[in-house]
Amino acid sequence: MKKIVLASKNSDKVKEIRLALQSLPVEILSLADFDEMPDAVEDGLTFEDNALIKARFFGARTKLACLADDSGLEVDALGGLPGVYSARFSGYHADDTTNNQKLVDELKKIGVTESKADYRCVLAFVDTDGSEIVTSGKIDGTIKLAPKGNGGFGYDPYFYITESRTMAQLSPAEKNSISHRGAALAKMILELKGRLP
Amino acid sequence: MKKIVLASKNSDKVKEIRLALQSLPVEILSLADFDEMPDAVEDGLTFEDNALIKARFFGARTKLACLADDSGLEVDALGGLPGVYSARFSGYHADDTTNNQKLVDELKKIGVTESKADYRCVLAFVDTDGSEIVTSGKIDGTIKLAPKGNGGFGYDPYFYITESRTMAQLSPAEKNSISHRGAALAKMILELKGRLP
Repeated sequence: MKKIVLASKNSDKVKEIRLALQSLPVEILSLADFDEMPDAVEDGLTFEDNALIKARFFGARTKLACLADDSGLEVDALGGLPGVYSARFSGYHADDTTNNQKLVDELKKIGVTESKADYRCVLAFVDTDGSEIVTSGKIDGTIKLAPKGNGGFGYDPYFYITESRTMAQLSPAEKNSISHRGAALAKMILELKGRLP
Repeated sequence: MKKIVLASKNSDKVKEIRLALQSLPVEILSLADFDEMPDAVEDGLTFEDNALIKARFFGARTKLACLADDSGLEVDALGGLPGVYSARFSGYHADDTTNNQKLVDELKKIGVTESKADYRCVLAFVDTDGSEIVTSGKIDGTIKLAPKGNGGFGYDPYFYITESRTMAQLSPAEKNSISHRGAALAKMILELKGRLP
C-alpha cells in the first residue's frame, strides 16, 4: 500500500486529514513517526508557496510521497490578516489562546465588532517521482468577538459559519464536510484516486 | 411531515438541492407543483438580497416554508462579474451557452486566458412563522477558456476546481460534497435540524 506522510506537527490538523483520507487505499504516516525531523522554513508569501515548501522538504527527507497543508484565516476588516501569519499572529511562541486574543484586540482597536472572513486551505502533494498536485478550499463566515464551542482548533470558536453557530461547535465529520480543509481534501482525493492502484 | 417549497424554476438547481436535503424529514416541493406562479423581481444588489426576495415572495404565495437560492460566479479578472448577473450575463434571454460565450469573450477582450474565481451561493429559508435563516457557501477555482465535461450546469465546464478538472466533470454527489451550493446547504441543514421534529 502506498505510504503518504503528512507534513504537519499540528496533531489537530493530522487528525482532520486522516479522517478525510480514510476512503483511500493508502497508509498515512505523520512526522511523529520519524525521529528528529527538522522544521521547514515557511517563508512563502502565500499559502500555496508554504504548502509546497513543506511537501517538498519533508518528501525529500522521508523519501515518501508527502501531503502538506497551509491554511489560515483572512479577515476582511483586517485587510486579509492574519493570512499566512495565522499560526504565529501573536508572535513566534503563539498558541491558539494568544492568537485569538490578538484577533479580538486588533478588531477592538479599529472599533469593529464583526467582520466577514474566509478560512482558506491549500494542500500540496509531492509524489516520489517529483510530480506535484495543489488543491485549495475556502469557507466563508463571520468573525465575532464572542467565542462559542470547544471543538476544532485555531480561530474556530470565533468563526461563525451561520448567524449563531461557530466552527468550534461542529463534530469532526461535520467540520470536514463543510470546511476549507475538507474542500481542499475532497479535491485532492479526486486527483489522488486517479493515480492510486 | 413539514413541507418546504424550493423557490427555483431552474430544474438543475432543484435537483441538486433535493439530493442534498434527502436526509431531512421534510417533503420537498418545487414551483412546478403550483399553477401560474408569477416571477419574483430579483432586483437586489447582492446574492443575499435576491435569495431573501425570492424566499419571502414564494413563501407568501404558497403559504409554505420556502427555501431560495441565489448564486453566481465571481471572476477576479472581471472585478467580480458576472456576480448577481450570472444567470443573465448575456442578456435577459440568456442561457448557459450564451452566458459562457459572453464569459469567454469578456476575458479575451482584456487578454486574459485564465483567472482566479469563486462560485458563491446564498440560501435563504423563510418559515411559515416569518422567521428567516440565511447561509452561504463558496468554492474557489480558476476560469480557463477551454471547457471540459458535460455534468453540472451554468459556468461549470469553464470552472476548474483543480489544474485539470472542471466542476462539470463531477458526479452530482461529488459536486454537492465540494460545491458552493453544497456548503451553503450543509450549513442550512445544521440550522434546519434544530427546528424540525
